[in-house]
Amino acid sequence: MLFKEGKTGLFTDLYELTMAQGYFFSGKQSNKATFEYFFRNNPFQGGFTVFSGLADFLDLLGEFSFTNSDLQYLSHQGFRNEFLDFLANFRFTGNISSAREGEIVFPYEPVVKVEGNILECQLIESMLLNILNFESLVATKAYRIKLAAGDRPFSDFGMRRAQGLAAIHASRAAVIGGASSTSNVLAGKLLGVPVAGTQAHSWIQSFDTELEAFRTYAKIHPENTTLLVDTYDTLSSGVPNAITVAREMEQQGARLKAIRLDSGDMAYLSRHARKMLDNAGLQYVKIVASNQLNEFIINTLLKDQNATIDIFGVGTEMVTGKPDAALDGVYKLVCLDEKPRMKFSENPEKTTLPGKKQLVRYFDAEGQFFRDGILLEDENPGETGMICHPFYPEKQTRVNNLRCEQLLTEVVTEGQILPVPRDLFAIHSYLLARAACLPPEHKRFISPHIYKVGISEKLLNLRNELSKRYNH
Amino acid sequence: MLFKEGKTGLFTDLYELTMAQGYFFSGKQSNKATFEYFFRNNPFQGGFTVFSGLADFLDLLGEFSFTNSDLQYLSHQGFRNEFLDFLANFRFTGNISSAREGEIVFPYEPVVKVEGNILECQLIESMLLNILNFESLVATKAYRIKLAAGDRPFSDFGMRRAQGLAAIHASRAAVIGGASSTSNVLAGKLLGVPVAGTQAHSWIQSFDTELEAFRTYAKIHPENTTLLVDTYDTLSSGVPNAITVAREMEQQGARLKAIRLDSGDMAYLSRHARKMLDNAGLQYVKIVASNQLNEFIINTLLKDQNATIDIFGVGTEMVTGKPDAALDGVYKLVCLDEKPRMKFSENPEKTTLPGKKQLVRYFDAEGQFFRDGILLEDENPGETGMICHPFYPEKQTRVNNLRCEQLLTEVVTEGQILPVPRDLFAIHSYLLARAACLPPEHKRFISPHIYKVGISEKLLNLRNELSKRYNH
Repeated sequence: MLFKEGKTGLFTDLYELTMAQGYFFSGKQSNKATFEYFFRNNPFQGGFTVFSGLADFLDLLGEFSFTNSDLQYLSHQGFRNEFLDFLANFRFTGNISSAREGEIVFPYEPVVKVEGNILECQLIESMLLNILNFESLVATKAYRIKLAAGDRPFSDFGMRRAQGLAAIHASRAAVIGGASSTSNVLAGKLLGVPVAGTQAHSWIQSFDTELEAFRTYAKIHPENTTLLVDTYDTLSSGVPNAITVAREMEQQGARLKAIRLDSGDMAYLSRHARKMLDNAGLQYVKIVASNQLNEFIINTLLKDQNATIDIFGVGTEMVTGKPDAALDGVYKLVCLDEKPRMKFSENPEKTTLPGKKQLVRYFDAEGQFFRDGILLEDENPGETGMICHPFYPEKQTRVNNLRCEQLLTEVVTEGQILPVPRDLFAIHSYLLARAACLPPEHKRFISPHIYKVGISEKLLNLRNELSKRYNH
Repeated sequence: MLFKEGKTGLFTDLYELTMAQGYFFSGKQSNKATFEYFFRNNPFQGGFTVFSGLADFLDLLGEFSFTNSDLQYLSHQGFRNEFLDFLANFRFTGNISSAREGEIVFPYEPVVKVEGNILECQLIESMLLNILNFESLVATKAYRIKLAAGDRPFSDFGMRRAQGLAAIHASRAAVIGGASSTSNVLAGKLLGVPVAGTQAHSWIQSFDTELEAFRTYAKIHPENTTLLVDTYDTLSSGVPNAITVAREMEQQGARLKAIRLDSGDMAYLSRHARKMLDNAGLQYVKIVASNQLNEFIINTLLKDQNATIDIFGVGTEMVTGKPDAALDGVYKLVCLDEKPRMKFSENPEKTTLPGKKQLVRYFDAEGQFFRDGILLEDENPGETGMICHPFYPEKQTRVNNLRCEQLLTEVVTEGQILPVPRDLFAIHSYLLARAACLPPEHKRFISPHIYKVGISEKLLNLRNELSKRYNH
């Protein structure tokens, strides 16, 4: 089932529409509201999250309206005509501020702020969550893989285990996180990203011998041949045959680019294959490894085991964000008609921070991230002397006289979508620049140090005041 | 980024295209090939897998061709003109046999068989894997949730943590597995599935009091009101206010449908809320529970804790197939020009079963699933006296005189897509009928009994013969 209509108004949870109808008929539709997007946990028990998905979300927002067929469907669902007439001309007309794609962000931070009338802010919730949660999850996973792989490039090989056409979102986020190419051709075309891939076992099997399969492939694609060497036996058949073909290619003035290992122990096989290639004078032939890789496996292969792998193909675990499979981002009402709102909960960590807020990053003297501060919108971050722990407010940190940056900038003004960075390699470069300022202890995979995000005293006081009012 | 063009030829891994070009220029493009789709592990450490995604795959296959813009893109990627001219008129012209959607299937079974020329069979691989792996994963998870929830309905609330527009595939698979409705309106429209959902915390917070929020919602939607009771305090505020509104609704001749719990302990809160509702004479008001539910939590709530929950809203873990996040399905060449092919591997479990095969289910005298048999295509399953364990062939089971069924039927004939069941509730009913024949020990969540899948002696002999030939 393809979705060709190109309008995204129905790409929402039903309750957004029933609430919208409720706001419409209860005269609240023009009440000014502010919603904020945040998540509660870094994925993968990690120390950070890479924010991703903004440009895709804005594209979907630009198409957020309703076709006649959509309105007819809603009519059959019991929505009333007067409300449907209103939806017929619906466009989002509010403002959105957001962190940049590729920004490193942390739990409880307001990463995106949406302001408008309550009806329009409500309607776009599900779509915003859907895109930002998924892409941020995958971008974070991809950057963790980048941390493990270091200077060695890795390619997104995930399409076959990805989620329908969401494979394209996954490839996009993978490149933001650090993938240098993708196997997914549609993603390559739509995103302008290099595509990668040469042959599967079926190619090898379709010839009587492995050598003939290698030879034929190399003849047809002399400029770009990577030979898959594990169809029969990697070291006794695949690598020797690859060496034969590499020598034949040299005689034609071509060069074998790489061999690919896709099963067996990658440390053992890569070291032996490297030695065989080097002994044959084929130092330039690279070794690609694929087969259910993740950041932990790549890390131990390279750092503990001296695997001689030059390029990784990473699939399933990256594009699905395994094992978490989802980022827990939420979208909460924080202000209505200039009155701060707050959600209480049986689970204290689900209680929200009230009021329109700003997100400020403080840097230490070396230019490293020192603390992030969540402040009320009308505070001057330079004058905020102190930020405190959101749950243990007696834990305080001085931030006065520190260089600071506002992390949110406006990306939608009165419904007009402003230009945002879209070049994925530029977004990745931004991530790298930011990650260089994140102290390494937060980038550790196992039990990372928690980066401190504090709230201002004004915000603390507001929260305490509202808590008292509701709990009196 | 939306994908509006509606042609899916580029929705593939690059290597499918480079191999296709290779087959084209090496004169192999008309060689007859058979590929089979199978997976190696049931997801979730479970005892079965629910096959899903067939109709969606066939829809995408119907659109599998290349636009001019696609061909131009491939030209820039270095593909040659003669091959691109061929792609310009490309359509899949082969045959596909498949298990029915909703069928219960097991590891190593050939669930889908694709026959055609090797080029066309190769090109559709990535798309087939993408759709079948994802939907089968989610349908399996959803049916596990159904097993836990029993007669209590559950709704798909997963859109906000799903993967872009793949949320629609996820909702589809959720319904096949057992969800009775979805919150995703676009999925509801495209799939013809009931949609569900009423209000979020933001609705409650947008009013000065919870009571006013409840009252207003009920007035506008008297026919379909579920009140979310945990915004401030479930038992001291939410449930009492819901009771007040339920009584007011009664005076208007309406009935409150349900209350929804979304945080806190679901066993404790549901029991107390039930008592409060019953004491108020509101036995008909149902209790909905949502908040990061999965089959294990639902199971313990209902069976160990007497939670009085009538309806579940299940989101993230279902639509993402957490924690596995992917089914490991693969697509392997098994026959080329009537010669069986086999892939060897450093990992023995990755060695494939050669030859064109059929998948047969044998039933015991009570009509329960007894064994599945993987046979060569030209065997008569009624005459196959014995099937044996694929890795320990001395373990054999007699299957003669047992009733048996062919599980694969033709769904594509010479490129023509045949009608397949598309009504999702009918597919779910088929699943229920089949699951009734699967002995309960295979449906256990913890350490389920392994359902036995054997191979025929003929297939065993073929595998041994090919193994010897390659390892001589």
